Amino acid sequence: MNDCIFCKIIKGEIPSYKIYEDNKVYAFLDIACDAVGHTLVIPKKHCTNVLDCDRDYLDAVIEAVQKIAKHYVDDCGFDGVNILNASGASAQQSVFHLHFHIVPRKVGDGLNLWPLDGKQEMDLQSVANQLTLIK
Amino acid sequence: MNDCIFCKIIKGEIPSYKIYEDNKVYAFLDIACDAVGHTLVIPKKHCTNVLDCDRDYLDAVIEAVQKIAKHYVDDCGFDGVNILNASGASAQQSVFHLHFHIVPRKVGDGLNLWPLDGKQEMDLQSVANQLTLIK
Repeated sequence: MNDCIFCKIIKGEIPSYKIYEDNKVYAFLDIACDAVGHTLVIPKKHCTNVLDCDRDYLDAVIEAVQKIAKHYVDDCGFDGVNILNASGASAQQSVFHLHFHIVPRKVGDGLNLWPLDGKQEMDLQSVANQLTLIK
Repeated sequence: MNDCIFCKIIKGEIPSYKIYEDNKVYAFLDIACDAVGHTLVIPKKHCTNVLDCDRDYLDAVIEAVQKIAKHYVDDCGFDGVNILNASGASAQQSVFHLHFHIVPRKVGDGLNLWPLDGKQEMDLQSVANQLTLIK
């Protein structure tokens, strides 16, 4: 898309710190970074987010996420990764080209990248009845 | 794995609030929930996390994540989703069977599920040189 900043990065019209590239995927360092190696993994074919991504590009993106995550752990001295995605403005998505964040982690790095506390109480059977895809 | 709580959920040895199932994937409500519809999507074949998951199961899991996310937005009144994964104890993973969290979102839901602030400053060219998979 002509006015998409990530499409411009893929085309090289905006510079980026490239980490990985294949025929369907491009990965680069997030310039608004939260940790060493904070990486964005994006499909080369524009889509808004997970909700409208073609399946073959979605598979390619998650396979690239895995490849990069394994490289960070196997070769670069990290111990794990967080993988995060926001799909939709309501989910705090800010750039509307699908991107998965990879944040490499080390034991004792002091980061708290887990925003969930799991303390809401509700009638889960009622929720499941409303939301299930199993009919 | 015999002592894995998620393997026991897949086998029905521990009850769960099922949302979706196919031949490779099982999805259910997180009982430690953070929002209505907080869902966990897991492969039926045990693996620890993204780092050691077979590619066909990884693809199946992300495709199920997409299917469920679209169902929540298209059919259940949500506007978006956050997708989160922790791979490794250092990344705050707590159950060691791969799982992606889906947290359905609505405009104005008041949640803040984005743990990143993007304010760290560093020499990104140096980081990219160390981490790139492009040689």
